[in-house]
Amino acid sequence: MRLLKTNAEYLTQSVGAPLEIARVLVRDGDRDKVVPELDRALLTGDADTVLGDHSVDIIVEVMGGVDPTLRFVERAIDAGGGIPVIRVLREALVGDSVVKLEGIVNGTCNYVLTRMRNEGLGFDEVVRDAQAKGYAEADPSLDVDGQDAAHKLVVLAMMAFGARVDGQGVPTEGIRGIDPIDHRFAERFGFVIKHLAIGRQTPAGVELRVHPALVREDTALANVNGVLNAIAIEGRALGPCLLSGRGAGDMPTAVSVVGDIRDCARAKLSGVAGLATSGMKLRPQPIAPIDDVRGRYYLRFQVHDRPGVLAKLAGALGEADVSIEQMVQEGGGGGTGKPVQIVILTHEAVEKDVRRALAEIKRSGVAAHEAMLLRIQE
Amino acid sequence: MRLLKTNAEYLTQSVGAPLEIARVLVRDGDRDKVVPELDRALLTGDADTVLGDHSVDIIVEVMGGVDPTLRFVERAIDAGGGIPVIRVLREALVGDSVVKLEGIVNGTCNYVLTRMRNEGLGFDEVVRDAQAKGYAEADPSLDVDGQDAAHKLVVLAMMAFGARVDGQGVPTEGIRGIDPIDHRFAERFGFVIKHLAIGRQTPAGVELRVHPALVREDTALANVNGVLNAIAIEGRALGPCLLSGRGAGDMPTAVSVVGDIRDCARAKLSGVAGLATSGMKLRPQPIAPIDDVRGRYYLRFQVHDRPGVLAKLAGALGEADVSIEQMVQEGGGGGTGKPVQIVILTHEAVEKDVRRALAEIKRSGVAAHEAMLLRIQE
Repeated sequence: MRLLKTNAEYLTQSVGAPLEIARVLVRDGDRDKVVPELDRALLTGDADTVLGDHSVDIIVEVMGGVDPTLRFVERAIDAGGGIPVIRVLREALVGDSVVKLEGIVNGTCNYVLTRMRNEGLGFDEVVRDAQAKGYAEADPSLDVDGQDAAHKLVVLAMMAFGARVDGQGVPTEGIRGIDPIDHRFAERFGFVIKHLAIGRQTPAGVELRVHPALVREDTALANVNGVLNAIAIEGRALGPCLLSGRGAGDMPTAVSVVGDIRDCARAKLSGVAGLATSGMKLRPQPIAPIDDVRGRYYLRFQVHDRPGVLAKLAGALGEADVSIEQMVQEGGGGGTGKPVQIVILTHEAVEKDVRRALAEIKRSGVAAHEAMLLRIQE
Repeated sequence: MRLLKTNAEYLTQSVGAPLEIARVLVRDGDRDKVVPELDRALLTGDADTVLGDHSVDIIVEVMGGVDPTLRFVERAIDAGGGIPVIRVLREALVGDSVVKLEGIVNGTCNYVLTRMRNEGLGFDEVVRDAQAKGYAEADPSLDVDGQDAAHKLVVLAMMAFGARVDGQGVPTEGIRGIDPIDHRFAERFGFVIKHLAIGRQTPAGVELRVHPALVREDTALANVNGVLNAIAIEGRALGPCLLSGRGAGDMPTAVSVVGDIRDCARAKLSGVAGLATSGMKLRPQPIAPIDDVRGRYYLRFQVHDRPGVLAKLAGALGEADVSIEQMVQEGGGGGTGKPVQIVILTHEAVEKDVRRALAEIKRSGVAAHEAMLLRIQE
């Protein structure tokens, strides 16, 4: 409401006609929370007065949730409504096609990882503080386990690759398992740990995955910190580009919504229904299996410092065709049996080979805990 | 041509009508350089067959230069043509207003500074190599002295602040004076030197300036390297956002041009002439004097290591109300009279006070050379 009022003159010019608020649907309990900019006479608790009114050109849904939202939105679309899109990404790519994309798309994950790295804190401690500050939900699972990022990646895959995929099939890992020690090792090798949503068009389908990854510290993506989001795109013609900004919050969301309203209004006036999305042709695509992904890996093992441990690790990797680029060890010493951290950076390897080696190492019993696997995103 | 052909289907959908190349104006000597995608029957050397043909809806100017380009463009605009705009920036800001912007807008400057920093090379050496690689013009002045960035900043100021300013009045500094030693000191303090175009709306007018500046190394802007460009914007509602990508080159330029063509075509079809720019209301604004800018400064003096030199520097700064945050010295020692580098980081100060102190220091004769002044961009 505030943006629509503040920018009324600009929007009228940009659209070619004034925008007028016809009706605002609220739950009864929310009537008192309405901002002063809103004329209370426009409020209604009856969805039919909004969805059934054919003089309404544009319906803006900002309720969230599934029920009754989905029913309302489906009814609005059946009546000829538009679909919100990610404007800036879409505009950046007019007339170009995307080779790959890497995004920091969950503000909570990025906030937690940034503070863990900068302050050496543990995951639980930062999450508790983030909850107190309102940056994390009471139940942070949807964010920190990666599902929120996976949902967004499905939308990005539509935008970038025209791919309609099974959202359940996106390989998804969160950030719960990351230890402050991983941040320290990453830093030592010149990397920053970021939680990424990654998409790439391959002959076997669209490769989509969500997981924490090591990103070189001197890249723009590595320096997108706190609650900021970013999407790095490799366009076929455009080359690399990066968009970064706040991913959430009242006003950034309002800017997006008002932009979408403007686009819908312009499309409506030009007589091209659904113009905003008409350039997007979706086709079903399989998600390429993550087992076949090639890349470099960061592997951390907690072992007991006994003779033969290193040989066992190196042997299992070698037998699985995974070659070692660097190895460092911390703690222990002198074969005293104390717990030791061993971190290995591999050369480029195939994910399933790395998994095979880890399974063999687990079977052998040399490691005190499950190994930590982080992919290196070049 | 290539993009228009490759994306013909997408563009037809997005515009709502097919795009057709009507005519291509070339100089006679260029007839043989034409790409195979172009039907040679469309070539003409006669501007009138393009500019005088009222069946032509959109005229795309990619000739560059001033004469005869300006005449042609003016004639096209008089006939109702559009004006190209910076689409992504514009779209990012639909419904928001800009508080300030900082851009890396000259690829040559960024390439030269990046290599100087990473390889410890001198300015001349990198420029010669950049010329050999085609990243710098035979006469690189327009780029490395900052005028190209100043021209772009004038356009950005239109987009961001609706400000029509006197382009000659933009305070402009290039990167010729920067020594490898400045990169080294900047790194020591946690900064990277970038050539920036800066704009900010102030009560005294729009503050515009182009100069090298120290940017904190852990920011996204500091990590935009090589020929990449970037624009960091602080939106009133949107908060900070960053757009980065290739600033030049055949295909990135083609993507922009095709995007503009699409926008013009959509505007044309919707009957709103010049829609692409109609949201932009320009008003003349003075450029706020750089003398009044407040900020922190990096000052490097080359002095002879004699007793009393430091006292003289500190005294002159103190008398001008400039307080020192950090000071480091390199070389010399023991008052032997050898040349010494002294670098001072100031607390926040007003530019004219810093200038006054530097003038006093110059008058005193303690410094062997003109002091190096770099602004710190927070």
